Amino acid sequence: MNNLRILGIAGSLRQKSYNKMLLRAVQDVAPDHLLMNIFDLNDIPLYNGDVESEGDPPAVKHLKKAIDQADAVLFATPEYNYSIPGVLKNAIDWASRPPRPLHGKPAAIIGATMGQYGTVRAQNHLRQVLTASQNMMVMNKPEILIAKAQEKFDKDGNLIDGLTRDFLGKFMHHFAQWVERFK
Amino acid sequence: MNNLRILGIAGSLRQKSYNKMLLRAVQDVAPDHLLMNIFDLNDIPLYNGDVESEGDPPAVKHLKKAIDQADAVLFATPEYNYSIPGVLKNAIDWASRPPRPLHGKPAAIIGATMGQYGTVRAQNHLRQVLTASQNMMVMNKPEILIAKAQEKFDKDGNLIDGLTRDFLGKFMHHFAQWVERFK
Amino acid sequence: MNNLRILGIAGSLRQKSYNKMLLRAVQDVAPDHLLMNIFDLNDIPLYNGDVESEGDPPAVKHLKKAIDQADAVLFATPEYNYSIPGVLKNAIDWASRPPRPLHGKPAAIIGATMGQYGTVRAQNHLRQVLTASQNMMVMNKPEILIAKAQEKFDKDGNLIDGLTRDFLGKFMHHFAQWVERFK
Amino acid sequence: MNNLRILGIAGSLRQKSYNKMLLRAVQDVAPDHLLMNIFDLNDIPLYNGDVESEGDPPAVKHLKKAIDQADAVLFATPEYNYSIPGVLKNAIDWASRPPRPLHGKPAAIIGATMGQYGTVRAQNHLRQVLTASQNMMVMNKPEILIAKAQEKFDKDGNLIDGLTRDFLGKFMHHFAQWVERFK
Repeated sequence: MNNLRILGIAGSLRQKSYNKMLLRAVQDVAPDHLLMNIFDLNDIPLYNGDVESEGDPPAVKHLKKAIDQADAVLFATPEYNYSIPGVLKNAIDWASRPPRPLHGKPAAIIGATMGQYGTVRAQNHLRQVLTASQNMMVMNKPEILIAKAQEKFDKDGNLIDGLTRDFLGKFMHHFAQWVERFK
Repeated sequence: MNNLRILGIAGSLRQKSYNKMLLRAVQDVAPDHLLMNIFDLNDIPLYNGDVESEGDPPAVKHLKKAIDQADAVLFATPEYNYSIPGVLKNAIDWASRPPRPLHGKPAAIIGATMGQYGTVRAQNHLRQVLTASQNMMVMNKPEILIAKAQEKFDKDGNLIDGLTRDFLGKFMHHFAQWVERFK
Repeated sequence: MNNLRILGIAGSLRQKSYNKMLLRAVQDVAPDHLLMNIFDLNDIPLYNGDVESEGDPPAVKHLKKAIDQADAVLFATPEYNYSIPGVLKNAIDWASRPPRPLHGKPAAIIGATMGQYGTVRAQNHLRQVLTASQNMMVMNKPEILIAKAQEKFDKDGNLIDGLTRDFLGKFMHHFAQWVERFK
Repeated sequence: MNNLRILGIAGSLRQKSYNKMLLRAVQDVAPDHLLMNIFDLNDIPLYNGDVESEGDPPAVKHLKKAIDQADAVLFATPEYNYSIPGVLKNAIDWASRPPRPLHGKPAAIIGATMGQYGTVRAQNHLRQVLTASQNMMVMNKPEILIAKAQEKFDKDGNLIDGLTRDFLGKFMHHFAQWVERFK
């Protein structure tokens, strides 16, 4: 089976972000032929058309190249104020610009939160942005909506909840099939 | 009639942003007792919970104070990728944090774009964020959805389209009444 | 204190609908001056512009009159397929037509479901419809999102969960204040 | 090339519905191997779980069978009150029930309206329902958003606007490829 290169992007800059932990758990449970790099949004500046017109800043070039080289993108999003974090939307705003590396690429959305609704509203907005605007092939099902994340990860950031771990493995198995379909 | 202090926030950092022009047009056409300051998002950093836990950065302090001192907030939003610009959502993410100056305050949404749908999708997401999350009292009607903005402003950023200008004046008259209702 | 007349509308036709039970629980816990009638959507036909042009069917006339005579409307919505039930949306489609009795009226949204997300997605769509289209003054907070409804009502349809009952009483107290504000 | 069977569903019951006209225009311009039947929602009753538990009404059986036999579904939706018509959502509510014939099937959304925003908000809600709930494979691009429909169809319901006609043909060509991908 050929390797699949996945780019993982978490929508939070916090060191101890549950969504960063979630992406690392994906690296653990994913099938062997699924190689995931994690891109950190820390150095992406706020989008500014005037800056862009003088050339993409280095971190943006890096992001666009990382997307371009991946077979698919996996977004791990927190929910801020019932929607996508500005930090994540800002990265998408940059990446949506020419040569539009997101365009038409397979993607999936996962999310973890301390609250009880598991980022359902953030995922809803994010799906609209990725499908209708970027024409990404976003996998519909299954959905990963992790509520009460503080009970599912330990102090060192390991996903210790067995059911969630199994389900995440199953999810990544589906995602690998989904990505293959569009190669 | 008592003065009303409005804080205007445009969701774009570009110098020649149509939404910045739109806020300046509001200053022209608004009733005299409506005093609007425009807050520039240029210095607001990306939201990071680790940074926040060491104290708000100066620009964020400034933003929260400006919101707190205003009677209402007017958001002028472009549409990026069928949703709110990351730049604007990021500012809201900061401002949503304690002491939550947005909470319960009256607000309105306007938007301008070169496209034909006049930011309808961005306004939709923004309304959800401001109402359901921040409990802002967002005026429903009328709506300002400016399509083909390049035909309505001149090179110097003046709103030269008479119909739009009249409608904007009417809108601000309604908004003044809306804000009064919640004082 | 003057009486307030509330019209309660449940978005399900099922006899043992949790949302019908929820409206009856509201009647129990609401402040005394809040008088709620429940309107059953059973006889509302599917919206058809050709039928409408020959005059509203009797059930539609009845619905419009009931809305017109109420000070506010309380919608209790299930979630069907991540959105508003067609049954409820259809009733709103009729009621949105001239003389537009919903227009500008105060409203609130509550919902119950057997699932874990408590109708959050249905409430989101419904809020958009009621605010942006009908200019209803929809109360933002608090939110009533009842998950696992089968554990909170008994066989006879009584709300037996104490916490939910208390919260519902508090909700209706807020709603009464909200409605007063717009009289 | 093998034939593809498409089921066309318009979200309006009106005889002179622009969305019915639009489906008939699709039949004209679609590639020859694309065979489209149009299903009329006129006889679908309001969804009622009590009725369903005694067996699907005849029109619902007919709808489910028609969906099951099609390779893909094409939805032509008006926009009522900034969202999906209740009539259309109601049909989806029925069709979403076991044996769930919509599930996993390719689909596309088009829409026509007399207004200027071309059903953009209705399509947004409908896409959420079809993807996230029904796991339908909804084509993202291109989008058919027909504004000012009264200028594009003649009295007899023919699509006379040349540009729209050409674009609709191109759209159906893309849709045929999209459906093939999932066979």
